[in-house]
Parts: sequence; structure tokens; C-alpha cells
Amino acid sequence: MHPAPLEPGVWGVVATPFSGSTLAVDETSLARLVEHYERAGVTGLTVLGVFGEAASLDTQERRAVLETVADTVDLPLVVGATSLATAPVIEEVRLAQEVLGDRLAGAMVQVSSPDPEVLSAHLRAVHEATGAGIVVQDYPLVSGVSVRADVLARTLEPLPFVVAVKAEAPPTPPAVATLTQALGVPVFGGLGGQGLLDELAAGSAGAMTGFSFPEGLLACVRAWREGGYETAREEWLGYLPLVNFEQQVRIALAVRKECLRQRGLILESGVRAPAASMPASLLDQLKRHLAAVPQPVGVR
Amino acid sequence: MHPAPLEPGVWGVVATPFSGSTLAVDETSLARLVEHYERAGVTGLTVLGVFGEAASLDTQERRAVLETVADTVDLPLVVGATSLATAPVIEEVRLAQEVLGDRLAGAMVQVSSPDPEVLSAHLRAVHEATGAGIVVQDYPLVSGVSVRADVLARTLEPLPFVVAVKAEAPPTPPAVATLTQALGVPVFGGLGGQGLLDELAAGSAGAMTGFSFPEGLLACVRAWREGGYETAREEWLGYLPLVNFEQQVRIALAVRKECLRQRGLILESGVRAPAASMPASLLDQLKRHLAAVPQPVGVR
Amino acid sequence: MHPAPLEPGVWGVVATPFSGSTLAVDETSLARLVEHYERAGVTGLTVLGVFGEAASLDTQERRAVLETVADTVDLPLVVGATSLATAPVIEEVRLAQEVLGDRLAGAMVQVSSPDPEVLSAHLRAVHEATGAGIVVQDYPLVSGVSVRADVLARTLEPLPFVVAVKAEAPPTPPAVATLTQALGVPVFGGLGGQGLLDELAAGSAGAMTGFSFPEGLLACVRAWREGGYETAREEWLGYLPLVNFEQQVRIALAVRKECLRQRGLILESGVRAPAASMPASLLDQLKRHLAAVPQPVGVR
Amino acid sequence: MHPAPLEPGVWGVVATPFSGSTLAVDETSLARLVEHYERAGVTGLTVLGVFGEAASLDTQERRAVLETVADTVDLPLVVGATSLATAPVIEEVRLAQEVLGDRLAGAMVQVSSPDPEVLSAHLRAVHEATGAGIVVQDYPLVSGVSVRADVLARTLEPLPFVVAVKAEAPPTPPAVATLTQALGVPVFGGLGGQGLLDELAAGSAGAMTGFSFPEGLLACVRAWREGGYETAREEWLGYLPLVNFEQQVRIALAVRKECLRQRGLILESGVRAPAASMPASLLDQLKRHLAAVPQPVGVR
Repeated sequence: MHPAPLEPGVWGVVATPFSGSTLAVDETSLARLVEHYERAGVTGLTVLGVFGEAASLDTQERRAVLETVADTVDLPLVVGATSLATAPVIEEVRLAQEVLGDRLAGAMVQVSSPDPEVLSAHLRAVHEATGAGIVVQDYPLVSGVSVRADVLARTLEPLPFVVAVKAEAPPTPPAVATLTQALGVPVFGGLGGQGLLDELAAGSAGAMTGFSFPEGLLACVRAWREGGYETAREEWLGYLPLVNFEQQVRIALAVRKECLRQRGLILESGVRAPAASMPASLLDQLKRHLAAVPQPVGVR
Repeated sequence: MHPAPLEPGVWGVVATPFSGSTLAVDETSLARLVEHYERAGVTGLTVLGVFGEAASLDTQERRAVLETVADTVDLPLVVGATSLATAPVIEEVRLAQEVLGDRLAGAMVQVSSPDPEVLSAHLRAVHEATGAGIVVQDYPLVSGVSVRADVLARTLEPLPFVVAVKAEAPPTPPAVATLTQALGVPVFGGLGGQGLLDELAAGSAGAMTGFSFPEGLLACVRAWREGGYETAREEWLGYLPLVNFEQQVRIALAVRKECLRQRGLILESGVRAPAASMPASLLDQLKRHLAAVPQPVGVR
Repeated sequence: MHPAPLEPGVWGVVATPFSGSTLAVDETSLARLVEHYERAGVTGLTVLGVFGEAASLDTQERRAVLETVADTVDLPLVVGATSLATAPVIEEVRLAQEVLGDRLAGAMVQVSSPDPEVLSAHLRAVHEATGAGIVVQDYPLVSGVSVRADVLARTLEPLPFVVAVKAEAPPTPPAVATLTQALGVPVFGGLGGQGLLDELAAGSAGAMTGFSFPEGLLACVRAWREGGYETAREEWLGYLPLVNFEQQVRIALAVRKECLRQRGLILESGVRAPAASMPASLLDQLKRHLAAVPQPVGVR
Repeated sequence: MHPAPLEPGVWGVVATPFSGSTLAVDETSLARLVEHYERAGVTGLTVLGVFGEAASLDTQERRAVLETVADTVDLPLVVGATSLATAPVIEEVRLAQEVLGDRLAGAMVQVSSPDPEVLSAHLRAVHEATGAGIVVQDYPLVSGVSVRADVLARTLEPLPFVVAVKAEAPPTPPAVATLTQALGVPVFGGLGGQGLLDELAAGSAGAMTGFSFPEGLLACVRAWREGGYETAREEWLGYLPLVNFEQQVRIALAVRKECLRQRGLILESGVRAPAASMPASLLDQLKRHLAAVPQPVGVR
């Protein structure tokens, strides 16, 4: 029996909050953050992804993050793997399985090679060693690996254990169109939601990203299903200036964490090096964006 | 006497329309396009920029583009130089001067070196050989050259012939903040307007870009001056989904030209190789965006 | 009738010497340099290539370089095109034809797209507009375009006007093997000769590069034909430390020009920005290498 | 008391041999390989470096590699850290300390940021958490981080726990000159020895690399000390064609492992994905190079 495809909808990519000068993992903030996600109504959560700063956590910290999330919410969980090579990815997935058991909805594995055979063997090996369903993340900015969407589609099509694709190789809308047409599993947009309307139009199953207002992602995806472009656009417009502000190269993570902090969802907004801090010159504009964003109803 | 700084406001970056299977320069469409810009009320035009596909035009075609624009409108003109080295840049500026005379408001020259002395000598040599005011374009994606905003500011500060900066090294808002604080000349955002609100908040003098609805850029910049963030945001919201759609990596030029074509501003939307064509899968969404965008009043 | 393939052997890539603080083209040095090449016995010369700093010359300077070379030696000439787009490449080739007439053995055009159809159309258009034989240069470091060797081979195979390939996409030996097997025209190695032995073993027709001792390239290629690996290696060993010294990233051009200067082949070793100068810390070692290199017999 | 600087000389970067279709770590081959290094007379070994494929090993495999090496030879050991962020680097160093105790001569940590303060804080945190001496590896091709040599020198100069630098940011000879002049610790060249003569001339303390004939590296470094350039060149010439052959972009690791296999030092030459395999077209030339290389005396 093959692993079940992910549910379409909005999957929140969970930031890892830190506290103090040592930037220790702040489990209290983390719990508060994922509770907010659950209350807001997300389909599931993605933990230890790129924007969860997984690459800057040690094994014990990763375990603590997984435990906190699992203990706090009942949502299905996707867990990111940081490595590109097979053996350490398997080790990462096993850690997730050890902590989460059948709460693990999928292991998110990066596209590690442009060569279809190499990529296929890698994904197969991870699945065979762990039994986990695989969410394939195509994110060249992080992996350093670029593959054409049609080649990726042909590579993944015969792999029954692939449970979703996270399409983050810009331009994403045509990539989503190619992947959704070829594959029977959901394809999610990411990248902070900057292309959300266009990815939905191209057939995406929703968004898997960490935009600081998941309420906006949810409103837009729900509206798309119910009324198509016009209504989704209506719901989404008010968030778009903040989306663009947040999704700035190199500083996106720091900006997002500061938004989460100002919303009261985490206590401090520090990021671990080598991630960049938020320039002070952006603070006033961040506040303007937050003041203008639609106020979610019935949440908090 | 030093050349005068550019006027703040919106400078339209003019696309070069082509026609037929040979993709010949379509001067009729070009004239119609710049007439539209003038009627819409832009401060000036930027011709032969990156998105004017200057790098794919030969000398005779560049001359024809300059002549057509100069003959059609009365706006001040910035002309882009494609090369990175001094001697060919001087040759390009001289061509512009030959055709435009004192219509040339500035020669746009790329940041060609991260070394302050080398860059400074380059800009100085171009100015001394031509007398032209220099618009410095910081666009690493095209030039391959990255320089920190504070280093660029210190390099340009002592150069009295610099008449503007076009800041296109993301993240642009903190770069605009650094540059405007250090320099006495206007700093413009570009990149299709994707960061327009945040660049204005950081002190930019406006936008110099080729977004297919200059009316939107104009409305936003005008509103910013009159009412600040809130009113500018209000004016800008309706254009933002199209801005993001248009500003897609690699295909931005093709998408923009198709928008211009669907607006009736140019006859054909072909781009010259090696620029990429617009994926057919995006066409329906392009039409949805165009139907939803605010309809400019009193234009066309 | 199709243009004739290039002769196999050694094609010298000619540096453009400059003089004085203005770095004016030094035609006297240029003449001396190409005379040396002719006396040394090269098969032909490549002028206005990347290491001829063509991208930093204006049209008049390019014309002067071509005239000087044509007036000084009787060798067949390949002329490089700097642009990536079709129209300006055609303009560059026409300039070469205007000056050289049937002395032009081939126009060297860069691989401008990884898409076989786009590349094929580009090369075809340049040939059809000019009638020139095309030397295809695959040099991703300069063009920014990467294409797999087998894809390049399939793209070029049906094009009867391609007269040679310059393979400079490392690792070059397997690329040369793939290209020579598929194509009926000579494939040359470049990159300063750093992989010369291995490219010859893979089937290359020789070297097209600007190493400061063409005598070494000639001795090695001649020995390879006569005695294979062992004798070629014997001839080449003494030059190899200088080859590696010269072929240093970013500073290769400056190092090479200083070698040419110390040999007395050019008067000054200045390079035009944005090319980097030679670090002073390398000067003593440069002299050691020059003192140890085999002394060419019967030349100078 | 600060950790002692590394001994100058040749440090062998140890490949990790694999066997069978599963590419399991082959501890027998690994033992044979490091015994060879010890017999050849290297100063020390670098284990779990980039060319030890550390990034493709899981924790258990890394431990096994460290144990095998420690059990087989008495040499001082440098151990590479794969991560760029502080917490996981500390975890990696602790694993090395747990297995090696005071056999650990230094933990090799990558330059993780171009920002002097961020890099300095990173290195300091790793040292303070572990007490380990730090070998700083400047290898932009792998880390994605570029920093100017003079900035790196100024950053490292005040850090008393830095025990060596591995300079692998080309062009390396001027970088070595800058670093050795500023720092009181040895600076080693790497990159397969391609710039060995020039790095020694610039003041390097030797080589830290995995060239398949450490005998050559040793002979060259020894000769440099005794007789300077001339004698070192004499010893090195015969190896240089193989050095260049081995140091080919992307396939260097696979070529090197095949050389080690043909020498009888490891049983199989497989590499783990996403590392690339050796093209079959290179095999004959590899054999020619091996047959021509100077035959080490008294070893095997």
C-alpha cells in the first residue's frame, strides 16, 4: 500500500523561534505559533523546513522542535530534510518517524540532482529505507540544483510513494501547470505566497509556506475554490503588500519573524547566522503593513 | 556646470516592439507606445534599457529606436548603455547624443565593478568623454556585479555628474534607504514595481520601470506624495496581482509585452532570443489579470 | 558550397596590447605579437576573442585591431563576436568581413542558449546574413549559458556551416570526446592549455588559446601527432607550471599580458577594467616560471 | 592555553571508499589507504572533508570512518565539519572529539559568512563550546560564500584558537600571500595541488589535499624547503599532468578515486550521488597518466 497523497489546502511552514543571546529554541513560542495555525484552520504543518532554520539546528534541537509541535497540535505533519545525499536524509527521516510515528504525513526531500536516474534512485532509496511518503521540494535557490519542470514531472510520475510536490523554482506558475498535468498528487506553491493567485490558476492544490498571516492564505485558497479568480483576488489583495514586503531576498526570514513577533505569536524575532537580520530601516514600513492588513476575524 | 539631476516621478522603461517572423523593429508600435506614456503623464522615458532589449539590437536599430521616440514625444529621455567597459559605453552614449542632442537627460550606465576605484574611474571617464549626466544602474542580475549599498553610496557621493540611481539589487528597500540618505540625487526603484510601496517608504524618488500599466505607477507615486502610505496602498492594490504576474524570472519581458499587446499599445509581443517566450499555460491568467486591473480614466 | 572547416593545429588567441594611462590600443605591439605567432608557426590566429578584450573595445578600435593584424601577417583569421544576440553578432561579423574579406576563416559565435532550437536558429541566422563559416565557442564562464555536450553535438551536427568548435566548458576532455565523435569538424581546446594533453587524447584537433608561449602549444601538438601521449607529454611538461600559473581565475589575462611583456612581445601589460590587474605578490614567481620554461629555439 | 598550530607539511585529505551496489563504507580499503599515507610520510590526515564525501555520510558512518582511521594510524587528525551553521558544526566537532580525544589536531570549519562579525562569532562559538583548535577552510565553490583575502585575514588575526587556514578560493597564490603575511599560523593550499608551486612561493606551509599521489606532494614540499623553486619544480613536473587530469570540475572526486583504485589503495571507486561518476571516455588517458607518473620508491 502506498502512502496517501497530502490533503490539498494550506500547509503552514513553521518558523523556529529562538530566545535570548544564545538563540536557544523557544518551545513556548513555538507552541503558541502552531496553536495559532491550528486555530486558523490550516490543513497541516511543515516543520524543520528551510524557513524553520532546520539547517542551523542540531539533532537534539530538531527532536525538541518535533516533540513540541507534536505535543501541541493534532495536525498532520510534513518534516523537512536538510541534506541532499541519501544516507543523511534517511537519518533525518528516521528521527522524524521516531518522534512522530504515524503523525508524519510526508518527508520533504529536496531535488538533489538534475539527472532523472540519480534523483529517482535517491527518492526511492529514502522511501524504501523508511516507508515514508515523500514530498518533493524543487527549490533551486537552496539546493543549487535546477531541473526543467517537464523533466521533473517525467521523473516523479512513476514513483507511487511521492505524496506531493512543493514547486519553488521560479517562474512557478508554468511549472505548477506542467507538474499538475502530469502527476496525480497535489502540487503546492511556496515562496511566501508571492505567486499564489497564479499558482492556483495553474492548478496548484494550495500553498505550503510560512507567510506571517496564514489567515490570508486560507481565505484566498478557500475563495478560489468557491468563486475562482475574482473572489480569491478580492480576499488576497489586502495581504499582497505584506507578502511582497516579507518575501525579500536574503532577509525574508528575519522580516517574517518580526511580523510574527509583532503579531504576538512569538516572543523574539532573532534568526541564527548565517541568516541575515532585518535592516532597521524597514521597521516603520513593517508596522504600516501590519496596521493595514485585513484583521482576521475569530482568531485570537 | 554639472548636469541636472533627474526629475522625481515615474520614468517609463520603453519596450522595443518587433513585428513579423524576422522580429524587425516595429516603429509604428513604438510610437504608439511612447505616445501612451506621454498621455498618461510620465515624467520621462528610459529607452534602450535592459527591458528595451537593447542588447539584441544592432547600431542601426538602436538609432532608429532613438529617432522614433524623439520624433514622437517631447519627454526627457534617459538612454541605457548595454556594455560594461568604458570605451563601448562611450560609443553608445555618443550615439544617443548624436540623435537626441540636449533631449538626453542622462546616460544609464551599469555598475561594472565592486571595486570603488574602478567603478569611479569608469563613470568619470564616460562623463568626461561625453559630458553626459550619468544614471547609475545597480542591477546584479544583468551585470553580474554585486556591490554593497553603503559601498555604492560612498563611491557615488563625490561624483557631481551622477544625476540619479536606479536601485535594482534586491532587497531594494534597504538599499534605497542607504542610497537616498547618502546622495543628493533621486534614487528610483525598478524591477517592475514589485517593491514600489516599500521603496517609496525608504525614500525613493519614484519608479523607473516598464510595468505594462504606467497609470498604476503614476497613481501610486502621486498618492504617496499626497497622502503617504495609506492612499498609495489604496491606489496600488488593484495593480499588484498583475505586477507580480508580470515580474516572473526569465519570462518577465515576454509577459509584459503580451500585456502591452492585449492593451492595444503594440501590435505583436515577440521577443528576441535568447529572451524566453511566454508559456502558453499563462495566457488565460494574463487575461483575468487584465480584466481585473483598474481601468485608467481619460487615457485611450 | 559550404565554408571550409578550420585547419587543425594551434590557433593563437591574440591579446590586444594597450599603452599609456589611457590604455590606447598599441598597434606596434600588436604587430610585433602577431609576427611572433607567425614565425613560431601557428596555423592561424583568433582575433577579438574574450582574451583579446574585445568587449572593452569600441567599433573603431576593433577595426584598427583587425586592420593591423591583417596588414602584418598572412595567416588565416578567426574573429570573435562579443554579443549573444543575433543582430549585433551579425553587425560584428560584417565589420570583420569588411576589413578582412576572404581572410576571414571563421566567425566565432558563443553558445547563446541551452535550447537547441534557439541556438540553431541563432547560428543559422548569422550564417545566412553573412555567409561566414561559424566557429562555435562553448564558454559558460563568459556566456552564462550551460549546455550538455551531447545536446550541443546534436544541435551542431546538422549545420553544414559550422567550421569548428572551441570547447571551453569544463570538464573539457569528455566534452571534446563527445563532440569529436559526433561532428565532422575540428574541435579545439582552449582555457590556456590547462587540459591540452587530455583534450588531444579525447580527439581534439589542437589548441585555440592565448598561452604566452605558443611554442609550447605547437611543440606539444606536433609531438602528439608524431608520437602520441609519451612524446607530447615530454614536450609539454616544461611549460605546464607556467600554464597553471597563467590560467588563474579572474587574473589570467593580466598574468598572461605580463608574461608577454617580459618576453618582449608587447611593450606594456595593462588591462582594461573591469578586468583585474595582476597582484604584485605574483611577480617574483612569474619571473621564476619564465626563467625555467624551455627556451624556444630559432624564434627571436 | 591556546590550541597548537598545525604542523606545516603535507596533510592528506582522505577519500572515503565505498563498496558494492549499496556503496557501503569500506573500512578495509579505508585502513589500507591511510596506512599508505602514513608510510609515505605525511604530516597528518584530514578526515571527513569535502572530498571525503562527509556530506553523504550519516552519523554512524562518520563515526565508523573516524574510528577506522584512528585505529589504523598514529597521525594527527583534522576533521571536517559539513554544516555552515553553529549548532550543527558543534555537534559534528563533538562527535570527532568523542571518537578521537586528543588525537584531534583541529576541527575544519568553513567560512560561513562574508561578514567579519558573523564569521568571527561563529568560529568563536564553535571553539568555546568544544575547546577545539579551528582550521578555517575558505572554499567558496562548496560553501557558496566569498570573502576577500584581506578581509578574511583581518577577521582571523585576533582569533588565537585558529590553528591553520586552508585557502581554496582561487586565485589562491595571492590569497596565500595575503593570509600568511597577516597570520601567525600555517596556511595550506588545497585544490588537488594544481597551484602547489605558486602557493609555496606565496608562503604556504604545504598542501592539504587528496591528490592520488601524496608521494608527489611530499617530494615537492620537501624539495621546496631544501632547494626552493628549481628543485621543487623538478620533483613536481612528473605529477603535474595527472594533477590537472584529476582536478576536473564536477568529476574530480570520481577521477581521483579511480586513480586510487588503479594504484591498489582502495578496492572500488564508486562515489555517492549527487557526486558525478567518471566518464568512460577518460579511462584510457587515466591509465596513460598513471603509467607515466614517477614511481614512488620504497612505498608498496
